[in-house]
Amino acid sequence: MTPTGRHFLQIPGPTNTPDRVLRAMAAPTIDHRGPEFAELALGVMEGLQPVFGTSQPIVIYPASGTGAWEAALVNTLSPGDRVLCFETGHFATLWQEMARRLGLEVDFVPGDWRHGVDPQQLTEKLAADTGHEIKAVQVVHNETSTGVTSRIPEIREAIDRAGHPALLLVDTISSLASIEYRHDAWGVDVTVAGSQKGLMLPPGLSFNAISPKALRASQTARLRRSFWDWQPIIEAGRRGFFPYTPATNLLYGLREALRMLDEEGLPQVYARHRRHAEATRLAVRGWGLEVLCADEREHSASLTGVLVPAGHDADKVRAVVLDRYNMSLGTGLGKLAGRVFRIGHLGDFNDLMLAGTLAGVQMGLVAAGVPIDPTGVNAALERLQRS
Amino acid sequence: MTPTGRHFLQIPGPTNTPDRVLRAMAAPTIDHRGPEFAELALGVMEGLQPVFGTSQPIVIYPASGTGAWEAALVNTLSPGDRVLCFETGHFATLWQEMARRLGLEVDFVPGDWRHGVDPQQLTEKLAADTGHEIKAVQVVHNETSTGVTSRIPEIREAIDRAGHPALLLVDTISSLASIEYRHDAWGVDVTVAGSQKGLMLPPGLSFNAISPKALRASQTARLRRSFWDWQPIIEAGRRGFFPYTPATNLLYGLREALRMLDEEGLPQVYARHRRHAEATRLAVRGWGLEVLCADEREHSASLTGVLVPAGHDADKVRAVVLDRYNMSLGTGLGKLAGRVFRIGHLGDFNDLMLAGTLAGVQMGLVAAGVPIDPTGVNAALERLQRS
Amino acid sequence: MTPTGRHFLQIPGPTNTPDRVLRAMAAPTIDHRGPEFAELALGVMEGLQPVFGTSQPIVIYPASGTGAWEAALVNTLSPGDRVLCFETGHFATLWQEMARRLGLEVDFVPGDWRHGVDPQQLTEKLAADTGHEIKAVQVVHNETSTGVTSRIPEIREAIDRAGHPALLLVDTISSLASIEYRHDAWGVDVTVAGSQKGLMLPPGLSFNAISPKALRASQTARLRRSFWDWQPIIEAGRRGFFPYTPATNLLYGLREALRMLDEEGLPQVYARHRRHAEATRLAVRGWGLEVLCADEREHSASLTGVLVPAGHDADKVRAVVLDRYNMSLGTGLGKLAGRVFRIGHLGDFNDLMLAGTLAGVQMGLVAAGVPIDPTGVNAALERLQRS
Amino acid sequence: MTPTGRHFLQIPGPTNTPDRVLRAMAAPTIDHRGPEFAELALGVMEGLQPVFGTSQPIVIYPASGTGAWEAALVNTLSPGDRVLCFETGHFATLWQEMARRLGLEVDFVPGDWRHGVDPQQLTEKLAADTGHEIKAVQVVHNETSTGVTSRIPEIREAIDRAGHPALLLVDTISSLASIEYRHDAWGVDVTVAGSQKGLMLPPGLSFNAISPKALRASQTARLRRSFWDWQPIIEAGRRGFFPYTPATNLLYGLREALRMLDEEGLPQVYARHRRHAEATRLAVRGWGLEVLCADEREHSASLTGVLVPAGHDADKVRAVVLDRYNMSLGTGLGKLAGRVFRIGHLGDFNDLMLAGTLAGVQMGLVAAGVPIDPTGVNAALERLQRS
Repeated sequence: MTPTGRHFLQIPGPTNTPDRVLRAMAAPTIDHRGPEFAELALGVMEGLQPVFGTSQPIVIYPASGTGAWEAALVNTLSPGDRVLCFETGHFATLWQEMARRLGLEVDFVPGDWRHGVDPQQLTEKLAADTGHEIKAVQVVHNETSTGVTSRIPEIREAIDRAGHPALLLVDTISSLASIEYRHDAWGVDVTVAGSQKGLMLPPGLSFNAISPKALRASQTARLRRSFWDWQPIIEAGRRGFFPYTPATNLLYGLREALRMLDEEGLPQVYARHRRHAEATRLAVRGWGLEVLCADEREHSASLTGVLVPAGHDADKVRAVVLDRYNMSLGTGLGKLAGRVFRIGHLGDFNDLMLAGTLAGVQMGLVAAGVPIDPTGVNAALERLQRS
Repeated sequence: MTPTGRHFLQIPGPTNTPDRVLRAMAAPTIDHRGPEFAELALGVMEGLQPVFGTSQPIVIYPASGTGAWEAALVNTLSPGDRVLCFETGHFATLWQEMARRLGLEVDFVPGDWRHGVDPQQLTEKLAADTGHEIKAVQVVHNETSTGVTSRIPEIREAIDRAGHPALLLVDTISSLASIEYRHDAWGVDVTVAGSQKGLMLPPGLSFNAISPKALRASQTARLRRSFWDWQPIIEAGRRGFFPYTPATNLLYGLREALRMLDEEGLPQVYARHRRHAEATRLAVRGWGLEVLCADEREHSASLTGVLVPAGHDADKVRAVVLDRYNMSLGTGLGKLAGRVFRIGHLGDFNDLMLAGTLAGVQMGLVAAGVPIDPTGVNAALERLQRS
Repeated sequence: MTPTGRHFLQIPGPTNTPDRVLRAMAAPTIDHRGPEFAELALGVMEGLQPVFGTSQPIVIYPASGTGAWEAALVNTLSPGDRVLCFETGHFATLWQEMARRLGLEVDFVPGDWRHGVDPQQLTEKLAADTGHEIKAVQVVHNETSTGVTSRIPEIREAIDRAGHPALLLVDTISSLASIEYRHDAWGVDVTVAGSQKGLMLPPGLSFNAISPKALRASQTARLRRSFWDWQPIIEAGRRGFFPYTPATNLLYGLREALRMLDEEGLPQVYARHRRHAEATRLAVRGWGLEVLCADEREHSASLTGVLVPAGHDADKVRAVVLDRYNMSLGTGLGKLAGRVFRIGHLGDFNDLMLAGTLAGVQMGLVAAGVPIDPTGVNAALERLQRS
Repeated sequence: MTPTGRHFLQIPGPTNTPDRVLRAMAAPTIDHRGPEFAELALGVMEGLQPVFGTSQPIVIYPASGTGAWEAALVNTLSPGDRVLCFETGHFATLWQEMARRLGLEVDFVPGDWRHGVDPQQLTEKLAADTGHEIKAVQVVHNETSTGVTSRIPEIREAIDRAGHPALLLVDTISSLASIEYRHDAWGVDVTVAGSQKGLMLPPGLSFNAISPKALRASQTARLRRSFWDWQPIIEAGRRGFFPYTPATNLLYGLREALRMLDEEGLPQVYARHRRHAEATRLAVRGWGLEVLCADEREHSASLTGVLVPAGHDADKVRAVVLDRYNMSLGTGLGKLAGRVFRIGHLGDFNDLMLAGTLAGVQMGLVAAGVPIDPTGVNAALERLQRS
């Protein structure tokens, strides 16, 4: 069937890029060593700070989010260093695999992919490490594969309770600018982020926000690095430049996206995401289905993982929804393949887009033969009705 | 409240311009006397023919639809000529006012704004005009102000039954490329159309499709004309040019829109509009509200007029919907002001956009205090579910 | 040859639309009856006033410039009224033909297409009209077909000297926003303009600036009008609306273009055009060719007409330039066909674009076998060198 | 001075992105795990092969060109491996520094920044390495900092003459799609490229073309790698996917750019660049200035380095050109700072853009007080005149 109308891109990122941002990106590329560029770069660097909740430098990479993962590790750690990771889902698993491949020793605490990092368990692990061999704790703030949000403030407290000096490295790829986040106030050492989720850009930029402690660590860290090295980037960045050719047009888009976030106000952005997530969960439960996230304190505000009943294939639902309703949903990743689909409700979004999204899921479930109670959309609308 | 996400432009035109079309229009303007332009112009003129259902020339004006109304009159009629018009709604009323202002005598058959042109009545009117003083019959195919579609084939038959030589002038501004239409097969003499509805463009282009009989009439018609004169346009058009500067960038958009219509297929386009209109009426009735169109044979496939209960203000509903849900609905025009709002479901549209639209109407009605049964969306989804 | 790089659109309009404007126009169409639209419309109406040099209302048509010609006539004149026109070139000829076709009596003072309106001759014509039968004087400020600019202040004086009450109607299609113009100060009654020249937009909008005297005339003028009627447009315009669907996306572009003019400053805009015109004439004379405009006081700042030597075909030069150098030049219109080509140097332009343009003309002349001295570009660069 | 008209971006990359490409990039981002994406990705991968002159896999990174440098090294080499580098300019210097930082041993053959790699010297170096400790030879095909093009086929022969098994790693960042290049035929093992030069895209994509020998080397190479690792990218790429979120919108642009190269034809693209480079050198010599490249066999077709006379500051010339003529030129990098400016004449370019560029340089030199003979533009036009 020839698709018509606007595609609903309801994967948990890349998100529906606002056309304001797309138009901003369509401006001609400028000289990245000229005065106009410097003004652009200094502006976005400054504009990013409230979004990360930091007054510290933020490094922008012309690269995808996985690159920023690598940057967080190679700038702060040395071969053989021990890092503590938690199996909260697919991306936590990939990030610890990356750590291993880069020559680090990984303690990977197993998990069921339905919970976030357990602060209590973290305290215990660190308390047991009396020799302080663990140099860093890796946490995915919002697991894009599951829709579970780990509680960073409690994680920070857990580290402090253990009196442990490990660095705290946090992946906010699918939470930044959607779910409240405070790099400085929460004592995070390196925050990893990407452009294509809450920042509403196409993919192609990624970020490290860096605490003074992390910056000090980078002076002795011995993992080999060149492209990812913070130091020349921070240095050139002071004058609004980059040590290599930056992704200028994405920076145009970023400037526009930061303006949009500022116009709406970050508290309003976060509240909107929470509200849409609540409405989505009400729909899922209305259908008689189960939300993947198993802890009420950890529901993601940016996406919702949905379990399909045994005997049904989540990817078949997704295929039907794409074919009939011109909507992309997120697939089940890794060990969730076939059992889960994911609804993204983040970025540049509103109530009616959510209503359309949930209508598509409801009709797709029915069309795919999944037995549901077709009242989910109604339950969501009742929630949205309350402003 | 700062609006977020994509605006729902659910007035009955201009419609949600597809971004493919917007991007096509963003190409640099070219020399309108050069070879590249001629290729563009000949291409769109040819591509328009199946959309109008004609093999005759189609004149393109760099002007709004009202301009094409004027063109239809000044090219075919002489001062003092009598035209027969029917009060099917606001636009039929405006068009006959224009005829009066241009110096024509108008027979304006009163109507209740809930029905289309009555073919029986038309036959009677023409049969009574034994002197053939009536030179033209003006019909609005799809009344944008009411959501009522007059039945052109029956109107043609009615004229033939009366054996009357009057020209048949038809306004298809909100039907063309949304509702089946056949200029040649239905014996229409001048078809008036605009760019900003089913053709999915921004406003700024309008059209006259012209029968051989209308062309002959233009040779003796004595209403003064210059800008609107068909003859130099048709002549220059044979070589792909215009007698004055054309709206080049809108023609780029038109080329792209014609490609989209061709990819989907006109029968599929019409079926899609019918289906969305049915689902919309089911929603309206589910809410316990009344559809304005009072004849089952005349429901518009491109928009639906909805009556709000006495004591409620349709414009207040619209204001709430715009403010809370970032959606524009059509206002009640002329004598329907305050009593009716209109839902546009035409152009580049799909099931989930309709679901979002109806969700917004439902929530808006509740928020505005209109007593409804909040099951309308469900009723629509059930219809959409059947593919 | 496959063209590469950016096309040089050096016809005297449409001009090279700045990509800022194209991007602005690519925004989604909005509800033309909503609050966001009203803000847009009121903003552009206000922003246009300094460009026209008026504090009076300016009517915006969703139509080409010829439409605004027609509007100027049908709003102010009655059937059989006498108008005084001057054969300054192709467009002056077309405009008086339009007047005839609309039922006016035209006095058409012959000209050689190398001079503007002669104020002395005008005084004489009006003085001879002791019965004040002449109701309007039609003047093309800047003849796009010749590159000759008539001196409006002297024309105004000439009318005043004759003590004649005729309205002064002025076409500024290829001068507005390129060449100094003052609707109020110069006592113009109707100024006609279009979007696609100095205003840097694609074609599709046109304008009438209206003096109080013209507005009074419109109350008794009896030429038939509906689409072009000022009165409903002015009325709706007070609240930021239009009586029919406006060309919304072109209005987005207009807002951006007005911002650009404001950033540069109108005096700077005019000076830039004058400077480029001077450099162009130096190039033409450097080549040993003749500028069409025969009066030093009347050289156009927005385009230059160039005579090719007898025995050579200006259109062959143009074809070679298009084919080899990816540049469009203006053709010789009407009686100048084949003898003249026109170089547009107006709108969003700069020194290096002019250098490229003149280089293309120089190389094209040589390639087409026109005997020239290839030092024209140098002469122009010397002029540009002086800032 | 407020800049007007189109900026001339005549640095040697990023180049003037064609608006076709910018518009292509402005399409909404799609699901990078869906069928539409796979078609896009497979298409660009296939379309890239003729541009690189290879039938082998090409890896696309969502990163800048320096990233692709790092990828070439970490995929093929092990800690302590020896690489042979040549000081042909700034970028060759940076690349060997990167090699050092990644833990490789570098033999850096000094150079004067006015010549390319000397094949004879290379043969000698490799012949002396009887133990085959040198694992790779790093060559910058076209030194963006100097405008000198090393002769890869002779370099290949030199390696073969020495009978040495070292890998040949070639940076084509400012030559690919501008200067003839044949990865397979010339026996290159890893070709490094970026998006923002001959490929006419904004920055943000980079590439490795990989020989079977390099691929084998990657199986035993022990430099730590994760983000840059070829193997998962090649594997996922077979089905049109990426192991991490790709820069989708840049891939849209790449598809369009590949179409443009195909329409023009690669031999025509190369010839055009050679011709523009010749005209540029004629201009430089016409001004009485010296081209930086000192070997007639090594002139770059994509940029020209120009030496300013002693006592003059090249950056002052650049500042004047930017301020007065709205053109960006390339600065002198590293040890050439202040002594050299660079003119980029690559990417989407044509004769008139070059004429404008050279006019701007000529006027800028005069304005900056550099003593020149102002006939350079003429000399260039004479060359361009011959088609």
